[in-house]
Amino acid sequence: MYRKEIKVLDCTVRDGGLMNGWHFPDKFVKDVYKACAASGIDYMEIGYISSEKAFSRKEVGPWRFCDDEDVRRIVGDNKTNLKLSAMADIGRIDPDDIKPRKESVLDMIRVACYVHQIDKAIFLAEHCLEKGYEATINLMAVSTVMERDLNEALDDVAKSKVPIFYLVDSFGSMYCEQIELLINKYKAALPDKTIGIHMHNNMQLAFSNTVTGIIHGCNMLDATLLGIGRGAGNCPLEVLLSFLKNPKFKLRPIYDIIQKQLIPLQKEIHWGYYIPYLITGSMNQHPRSAMKWMNGEDKDDLVGFYNHMLDQKDY
Amino acid sequence: MYRKEIKVLDCTVRDGGLMNGWHFPDKFVKDVYKACAASGIDYMEIGYISSEKAFSRKEVGPWRFCDDEDVRRIVGDNKTNLKLSAMADIGRIDPDDIKPRKESVLDMIRVACYVHQIDKAIFLAEHCLEKGYEATINLMAVSTVMERDLNEALDDVAKSKVPIFYLVDSFGSMYCEQIELLINKYKAALPDKTIGIHMHNNMQLAFSNTVTGIIHGCNMLDATLLGIGRGAGNCPLEVLLSFLKNPKFKLRPIYDIIQKQLIPLQKEIHWGYYIPYLITGSMNQHPRSAMKWMNGEDKDDLVGFYNHMLDQKDY
Repeated sequence: MYRKEIKVLDCTVRDGGLMNGWHFPDKFVKDVYKACAASGIDYMEIGYISSEKAFSRKEVGPWRFCDDEDVRRIVGDNKTNLKLSAMADIGRIDPDDIKPRKESVLDMIRVACYVHQIDKAIFLAEHCLEKGYEATINLMAVSTVMERDLNEALDDVAKSKVPIFYLVDSFGSMYCEQIELLINKYKAALPDKTIGIHMHNNMQLAFSNTVTGIIHGCNMLDATLLGIGRGAGNCPLEVLLSFLKNPKFKLRPIYDIIQKQLIPLQKEIHWGYYIPYLITGSMNQHPRSAMKWMNGEDKDDLVGFYNHMLDQKDY
Repeated sequence: MYRKEIKVLDCTVRDGGLMNGWHFPDKFVKDVYKACAASGIDYMEIGYISSEKAFSRKEVGPWRFCDDEDVRRIVGDNKTNLKLSAMADIGRIDPDDIKPRKESVLDMIRVACYVHQIDKAIFLAEHCLEKGYEATINLMAVSTVMERDLNEALDDVAKSKVPIFYLVDSFGSMYCEQIELLINKYKAALPDKTIGIHMHNNMQLAFSNTVTGIIHGCNMLDATLLGIGRGAGNCPLEVLLSFLKNPKFKLRPIYDIIQKQLIPLQKEIHWGYYIPYLITGSMNQHPRSAMKWMNGEDKDDLVGFYNHMLDQKDY
């Protein structure tokens, strides 16, 4: 009943880090690494790869940079079947700062971009391919992209050497019919490429949209432990693995780390289904206003946040 | 963009009461009633209708019985557009104990049954119709019903006068393809009847399965405030109303009561997405084992619960 082409990628540390400035203790990152390896999933995204000048180490933790030295402190030479990924943001990594793969413990670099950055993303992803890495392009916030711009971007990606292209619902604002339409569009434009899917949970649709992705042919699936991620978070890895039938996936290591690391962390960081995130998602807005509200004194005033969003000049 | 045939039913007090023995303060029930009326939804299910001999009033609160006197204490003569519903369980209500509708403030009685009780359910629902009520049959736990039994039940319902038949995912174990298949089966067997949908959230699919229901023609949609309900709970009313485009629905009263009543209640009752409920749902099991585990001393031992479920004799 399972499709062997499907690969699962855990981005607990990378996307979860958006909630705590990537200030995870080494023990947490090591436990995620061990759980991912033991559960049989395919990739672990350990953070963002960034140039030193892009951020201050006083403000963000090591997983905003993914220095080879830091990664090796966690994984050694990574003698497991689990591949390691890092995400690159356009403008935050100088291509010259990326080591050749043979000097790095990373296997894959995923380039995140907005639609106006697609040419830069193709350049950077092809640069990573030339250096020996696997590479993807993850086009963010597609729920706000005009059709003509999307078509042009897809044409450019089609001509590139980048083998994997992601459908990303950055705002958690899409439902199954929109997902189906976009996947079919991506598949038609990129018939020889793998389509990936990365969903957010603002409307409690991250897992179900991922299932829609599977049904319509996505073969790279992003998820995180207990759904940790920016705002409402991501598709929960444990739900996804409960659903997939591939016997190589094991759930016990996943429940174990959720119990030992994620549930305690939930007391410090408030990702997941909260009404402010539902409100921004249902309005197709970036979650930043909701995250700000959730960190403010009025965080329990849901009607206040709803009124605030309706009063926004840009809505 | 909206379908005017769609009706939304809030079952916050009825299904949520499964988590606290229906011991809601009158203020809570009154606030739910006011919020439902103000938000423009169609029905509020205020509890179960039961005979006095079926339960002890020392153990369960008034919303396990729905005495007319208790209901009127909350709604008076209900001079709103909101219709009131109560659920009847087979064997827990003597048909003679149901007042004629003209003496009652209730508008609808929904008969819940398992497949082997379908004849009793048709008898009771038709009895309610004769007494002047609207009536439905809600066939529970369909994820465990053999196809031949389901076909026979649908044949019987087709011959009945009962106008509304519900697809119910009691264990929260179904995903979109199964929902689509069953709705199409129900529609084919019952072409002149309205199909309703009542989902549980064990795999975070209650809302998305409800959307699948909408797409395939369900016109009675169950939901609860902040998804409160047995175990993992139900489709959250606020997500559903954010999605439906009917201008008659208002969100502000919903966010207001969530803020004032539901979020405080979450500190006392633990419904929603918890791993033990995911485990029973993904195994297509009744949530009772998970609810027992969640109330025990080992509730944080997720691996323990997973092992416990795998060790069950009946699995």
